[in-house]
Amino acid sequence: MRKIVIAEHSGFCFGVKRAMNMISDVSTEYKNMPICTLGPIIHNPQAVEKLRNSGINVIENINEIDKGVIILRTHGVEKNLMHKLENKEITVIDATCPFVRRAQEYVVKLHKEGYPVFVIGEKNHPEVKALKSQAKNNVTVIQNESDLKNIEKSKNTKIGVISQTTQDLAHYKEMVMMIFDYYKEIRIFNTICNATSQIQKSAVELAKKVDVMFIIGGYNSANTKRLYELCKRIHSRTYHIETEKNIDVSIISDSTKVIGIAAGASTPDWIIENVKNYLKKI
Amino acid sequence: MRKIVIAEHSGFCFGVKRAMNMISDVSTEYKNMPICTLGPIIHNPQAVEKLRNSGINVIENINEIDKGVIILRTHGVEKNLMHKLENKEITVIDATCPFVRRAQEYVVKLHKEGYPVFVIGEKNHPEVKALKSQAKNNVTVIQNESDLKNIEKSKNTKIGVISQTTQDLAHYKEMVMMIFDYYKEIRIFNTICNATSQIQKSAVELAKKVDVMFIIGGYNSANTKRLYELCKRIHSRTYHIETEKNIDVSIISDSTKVIGIAAGASTPDWIIENVKNYLKKI
Repeated sequence: MRKIVIAEHSGFCFGVKRAMNMISDVSTEYKNMPICTLGPIIHNPQAVEKLRNSGINVIENINEIDKGVIILRTHGVEKNLMHKLENKEITVIDATCPFVRRAQEYVVKLHKEGYPVFVIGEKNHPEVKALKSQAKNNVTVIQNESDLKNIEKSKNTKIGVISQTTQDLAHYKEMVMMIFDYYKEIRIFNTICNATSQIQKSAVELAKKVDVMFIIGGYNSANTKRLYELCKRIHSRTYHIETEKNIDVSIISDSTKVIGIAAGASTPDWIIENVKNYLKKI
Repeated sequence: MRKIVIAEHSGFCFGVKRAMNMISDVSTEYKNMPICTLGPIIHNPQAVEKLRNSGINVIENINEIDKGVIILRTHGVEKNLMHKLENKEITVIDATCPFVRRAQEYVVKLHKEGYPVFVIGEKNHPEVKALKSQAKNNVTVIQNESDLKNIEKSKNTKIGVISQTTQDLAHYKEMVMMIFDYYKEIRIFNTICNATSQIQKSAVELAKKVDVMFIIGGYNSANTKRLYELCKRIHSRTYHIETEKNIDVSIISDSTKVIGIAAGASTPDWIIENVKNYLKKI
């Protein structure tokens, strides 16, 4: 009998749940108005598609609309965009994750108190772009060791450091340790969200005990990709899928006794359920 | 032909040189007054003995004197002692190392700005005691991992961290990384003195290339002991000596082609020279 185990912490985190609830409330409250999200509300194509089917479209540029309701996604938006929106006749619903918002506030605080700021994260991620925009000329994004080569030793004696909320804690620590040598004062805010650590931890624990491991989540989801990378290090038979349709059944044989499932913070429960039911039937 | 190599950075650091110069100036300026140091001026029995022979005594308690000149050592003194001295008819010459003084100022600054403070260092070292005294009830000394067991996760969300100036940088980083998990904000001052790192680095580099390694310095000198420990990890034939008298000649044989010498920040040049000359003659 094959066993299918879902990691203890899997799927929607606090911020995503909150955003999805906000969308649901908006749909009821503004049902006669056009509603859109600026960029995909979360990095999950299936969830976004479901919203589109219920009339909530994704726009990529605020010039595409001049009325109705716009929902800002969990990752937050860049500061100048926020200003532009304030000058439009549009109802703005800000679904920025409160933990991301707090990280933004730390950037502002550090900037005000005279610290140049390092954001440890992915340069092209919308959350990081929005974080950077809080104190534009004073923020440097550090993605990996090579970005540290440009630190000029003598220029600054102090530095503020925050992290993209979905970074891996070990990577954050590693980057901080590398910065350590260059500054007299380092002021670090640990802005990594607990949910991310919990999801990562329980997925990694599970990966140690299974024959095959599936990580479910958008191929465009940074936190899912990182979850996949972490588990892949533990277990070579780890596969990143978006839905059950991406499962290559040939990797499951009679000797596959235990299958593990974990899901990123932007993966809806219904997709996790679908994957589980599909695996049961193989 | 046997080679004897002295590590590039060896012996008196800036703070010790400065203190020894101050003593020399004081001896001239106050030659008709009794002069003493509070505790040994540096952790080197031979240097202290030499001073004693020139009339500069060591007292352990300020109640032992009520006139003359007192020289405060490089490690700094506890705050309440400083107050007591101010109320006496004694000339106080403060030879506290400027780098130690700066670390003390960081403790005061962090305390004033609402941060509890961790001092990474040796609990019973006079420098650490003086650092702690700057904000008595707000400072915890962290010597090693076991001291972190008592951190109550929930109690504080932020922490300030400084280090005893002679700590090993890798150990400091390691402790900071362990603290990392417990606080939302960590404000670190890198108070490790460059001289310490330089001395350690050049000693370790030298230890890799020699047949036998001697570390010279007071058996009571923390920085010399740490230098010994670091080199011992690299080279098992590392020996801590105070003077040439402590050398066990049986460890040097015909196959000993290169002998390395390194010295702690409180080791006078004349002792290093004596050791070198002694080794030449074996």
